[in-house]
Amino acid sequence: MKRSVFYLSDQTGLTAELLGQTLLAQFDSIDFITQTLPYIDSEDKVLAVVELINRNAQENAIKPLLFSTLVQPELKAILHRSEAVMLDVFELFIAPLEQALQAHSNHRVGKKHSSEDKQAYDHRIQAVNYALKTDDGLSIKQYAQADIILLGVSRSGKTPTALYLAMQFGLQAANYPITEDDLQNYELPTWAEQFQHKLFGLKIDPQRLHEIRTERRANSPYASIEQCQLEVRQINKLYQREAIPTIDTTSRSIEEIATKIIAKTHLKR
Amino acid sequence: MKRSVFYLSDQTGLTAELLGQTLLAQFDSIDFITQTLPYIDSEDKVLAVVELINRNAQENAIKPLLFSTLVQPELKAILHRSEAVMLDVFELFIAPLEQALQAHSNHRVGKKHSSEDKQAYDHRIQAVNYALKTDDGLSIKQYAQADIILLGVSRSGKTPTALYLAMQFGLQAANYPITEDDLQNYELPTWAEQFQHKLFGLKIDPQRLHEIRTERRANSPYASIEQCQLEVRQINKLYQREAIPTIDTTSRSIEEIATKIIAKTHLKR
Repeated sequence: MKRSVFYLSDQTGLTAELLGQTLLAQFDSIDFITQTLPYIDSEDKVLAVVELINRNAQENAIKPLLFSTLVQPELKAILHRSEAVMLDVFELFIAPLEQALQAHSNHRVGKKHSSEDKQAYDHRIQAVNYALKTDDGLSIKQYAQADIILLGVSRSGKTPTALYLAMQFGLQAANYPITEDDLQNYELPTWAEQFQHKLFGLKIDPQRLHEIRTERRANSPYASIEQCQLEVRQINKLYQREAIPTIDTTSRSIEEIATKIIAKTHLKR
Repeated sequence: MKRSVFYLSDQTGLTAELLGQTLLAQFDSIDFITQTLPYIDSEDKVLAVVELINRNAQENAIKPLLFSTLVQPELKAILHRSEAVMLDVFELFIAPLEQALQAHSNHRVGKKHSSEDKQAYDHRIQAVNYALKTDDGLSIKQYAQADIILLGVSRSGKTPTALYLAMQFGLQAANYPITEDDLQNYELPTWAEQFQHKLFGLKIDPQRLHEIRTERRANSPYASIEQCQLEVRQINKLYQREAIPTIDTTSRSIEEIATKIIAKTHLKR
């Protein structure tokens, strides 16, 4: 039987979700079924949640887990009446933080939207636009503005990685596909010399590449295992010869790939 | 003076970062300067971090805050020797979780990469590809596969929202720009009738739209405040007439916009 888990928040719910996922990964003998309840910001909504949780507890004859990032004391008081195992994020952290900071928390829902936030936000949107403009080898003339230029064979994960770097960290990430022509001569494209210090290579296992390309164009020469093996062998040699830093994307999430790239290049996250 | 904050992890650091940001938003009278230290997964690296933290504590004559999601007890033991105010995420949560779940945590670094994870991962990548293929009114013939179709005037935030819905939640989000031609007749494009239940409208304040468009094309008729006011007035009327659900993007982050859309449409996150 699966154990029910609720992620509850008066805001987006992303913090409760990510924290819960991280913690529950430590219990891999147990199957969890999760539900996120965002924007629970009124008495009525909290009461409805308590009812939902209590029904769940009764039906499964076991207390569900409840990760909560509710801030307001009066709403939390209602929530604490539920039958769940309460994991109250603010309760656990706010007291030690108040002591360390010698300040009271403001108990205000949500982040303030300062002009600094707005700037950071605009920066991220600009970076997303940059990633789109420079996707897949487009707009090489804008590489001077790049924080990083991702290289890789077709379907090695360049585009999602560039978009994640932009969306999450506001980094201007261009990406450029290394084609058969480049590979046959074991040479980087001519623009690359000027931007050598910005290059970063994505590696991938040929078998995995074959699977991904097969989903896109089954039974094509492009997707064949031989072609994938050839391209991977050639590009890895090229990375080595040109001393380009690399990461293997094969069994990593976009988050891991992006944060490892930042760690390796000392870009600012 | 700014208070130093370190986010430390043996993995990406994203959980410590997001949790810390959420908690510190409760102390808006204090300025923080933050640094993320990911992939701290060996004794040597932890020792180097302890040194970094102790130097910081000495220089600033105050203990920095340290949010840690380290898992391994032997590494944590070293870390606890530092001069920081320790906010040990696993320590605070694992004990109550072990009790509630009647199970021991596995103290293993990182998430396991199960076939379920791989499926979820492939799903997200597919969704990103879908968002790109259907960006800005492209590939209307693929709307049958859409989970949602975002509408809005040019620069109202459609593309980043669609990409975030894809990247974070694996949702297939298309987006379509409502142009002057559509607006002048107060009519939806002809394809829309068939997909009425998937439509979602982005609203934006005309002044903000004017600012965003000005950055793109300063002093153009396209960016003029009059044009922005006109388009916004017309599209809002169109949303209302066609009973299309909407969200105002003006002072919201991508995360807020995306999670609010999911909450309103009852899509699965």
